[in-house]
Amino acid sequence: DPFEPTIRAGKVFARGAQDNKGQCFYTITALKALLELSESLNFNLKLFIEGEEESGSVGTMEVLEQKQEELQSDYLLVVDLGIPGPGIPAITLGIRGILTMEIEVRTADGDMHSGGMGGVAYNPIRALSHALAKCFDEEGRVAIPHFYDDVQELSAQEKKAFDLTMDEEKMQREFGLRAFCPDPGYTIGESVSIRPTLEINGISGGYTGKGFKTVLPAVATAKVSCRLVPHQNPEKIFENFKKHLETHLPNGIELTITKEHGSYAFRAKENSLIAKQAAKAYEEVMEKPCKTILSGGSIPITVELAKASGAEAVMMGFGLDTDNIHAPNEHFGLDRFEQGFLTMGRILGQFNAL
Amino acid sequence: DPFEPTIRAGKVFARGAQDNKGQCFYTITALKALLELSESLNFNLKLFIEGEEESGSVGTMEVLEQKQEELQSDYLLVVDLGIPGPGIPAITLGIRGILTMEIEVRTADGDMHSGGMGGVAYNPIRALSHALAKCFDEEGRVAIPHFYDDVQELSAQEKKAFDLTMDEEKMQREFGLRAFCPDPGYTIGESVSIRPTLEINGISGGYTGKGFKTVLPAVATAKVSCRLVPHQNPEKIFENFKKHLETHLPNGIELTITKEHGSYAFRAKENSLIAKQAAKAYEEVMEKPCKTILSGGSIPITVELAKASGAEAVMMGFGLDTDNIHAPNEHFGLDRFEQGFLTMGRILGQFNAL
Repeated sequence: DPFEPTIRAGKVFARGAQDNKGQCFYTITALKALLELSESLNFNLKLFIEGEEESGSVGTMEVLEQKQEELQSDYLLVVDLGIPGPGIPAITLGIRGILTMEIEVRTADGDMHSGGMGGVAYNPIRALSHALAKCFDEEGRVAIPHFYDDVQELSAQEKKAFDLTMDEEKMQREFGLRAFCPDPGYTIGESVSIRPTLEINGISGGYTGKGFKTVLPAVATAKVSCRLVPHQNPEKIFENFKKHLETHLPNGIELTITKEHGSYAFRAKENSLIAKQAAKAYEEVMEKPCKTILSGGSIPITVELAKASGAEAVMMGFGLDTDNIHAPNEHFGLDRFEQGFLTMGRILGQFNAL
Repeated sequence: DPFEPTIRAGKVFARGAQDNKGQCFYTITALKALLELSESLNFNLKLFIEGEEESGSVGTMEVLEQKQEELQSDYLLVVDLGIPGPGIPAITLGIRGILTMEIEVRTADGDMHSGGMGGVAYNPIRALSHALAKCFDEEGRVAIPHFYDDVQELSAQEKKAFDLTMDEEKMQREFGLRAFCPDPGYTIGESVSIRPTLEINGISGGYTGKGFKTVLPAVATAKVSCRLVPHQNPEKIFENFKKHLETHLPNGIELTITKEHGSYAFRAKENSLIAKQAAKAYEEVMEKPCKTILSGGSIPITVELAKASGAEAVMMGFGLDTDNIHAPNEHFGLDRFEQGFLTMGRILGQFNAL
């Protein structure tokens, strides 16, 4: 049973051990301690546990709408993220939005033989490769018209507030990465946080098994996603992407492109009380200056939760890149459980003492 | 048992019913008739049955080398092809060569998450799409340097001799074809016979199942083939293709490209005795002028057989595009069995009467 936790070498191994049961657990444990140790609670506390984030949050969205009044809050603490490395405290003030799309390019009713039709029947893989290649300019920027229109540069204040440095060598080593492709004019840390992306997450067409078949396929498909930054509208990006593909496919070729999911980016204020309190707690527990970072990932429910509650938000957590989340051998360190418990306890204590 | 023949609606259904057992069968039957009806055979006859054409002809190649002396002949009749449509006689004087290749583009040791690495880790599908798109120029010609260097235009005599017209509407209807892409400056019939091609037969990378995974893949692969015309050297084309891909992939990205198979095109003389005799026999049996055509497909063993025997060759047969060769429900019409038997009988009779 992969959900049965086992402790090995100071780590809890189980599916969800970090994302997000482990993080929920230290949060609840800190709350329990607060309630046991405090004579009275000097602030209103609302606990929201989201159990279907990985499968679309359909029920949560309904609840957010129904319970909007009860959810009204001053501050929102989302405990679903990580720290840049062991012992390095950091609060997260931004996540990217996302747009996911499926593309099908069809050039015939059925597959053909590349001897009898090769050189005359338009090959859908060729058409799709060409259209996808046209999504980037020669320098590597996304070439979809208006893609960057709504993107705003960081203000001087934000530039000072956010730590967007990245350990490139570590990234390279960790994944055996052969080549970086940062957004021209931006650092790697900026490219992965304050810049939007377009990635091809999957492609398929024709014969892909062992050996060779001289098939001339009728269909090719791709899965494409964009990570979005504040002010970018997933719906607008989708429409422009669709138009761009249509422009770069030969006449007559059938294009089916469907929007799978779209959500806005989220950026929290760097000088809110909750951000300050969280940073202070992190620093006290880990005895190091707390960084302020932006995450490249997307947690669509955060955007919705901030909207529904009307609260100033901050994101935090004790995850590490190496925790294997969503994968076999997902784990969470007991040391980070302790740090999480102490940090969370301190944040709650600070609010109680206000 | 798909190999068990059944007769339905005037057709034999079984794997290999047309390609190439049916065609072998009428050939052997005609030979049997010749031997039974002729008092003496006035020419030397050598029968070569190739049983492993679809799996590389490894044993045949050995035999060709060992038995070169016994194989020496004046004329070679290869019975493995088709006619342009029911009741339309045609001899085939050319087939295209082929080069098949497998490409792997690797950018990292393992898959990554498109949130954490999107926009900075080079995406192999993007790199591969770009490199494949660069294999064609804006007009649709193959853009690999020197690709067309050895291609010769048809001589005035060949132009007159070959019927390269194609029923485009029929092709379009048969496959529900959305778009043609003939070689610029050439007709569809020319593009599929006297011009070389480059086709992407398969592509694969990342997540291709149902729904969406925001994976940033480490590897993308493609299967690519070229159909070659006379004088094009598969080895040279392979080297140029490889160099071209390397040129159009970002630095550091790992490219593995392997040649799967390569063979030369074959073109027979249009005025050989065997070509004339075959055309005459076709015309007598089908009561229509016999066309002289070139096939877009490849039968590598024909090239080797012609070389080993030193013979003037002609290719013939009674296959139709609609016979479903290599596929379920492969079939061969009894009417074409009869036409094949009569045509082959006549060719043998004509040679016997010389």
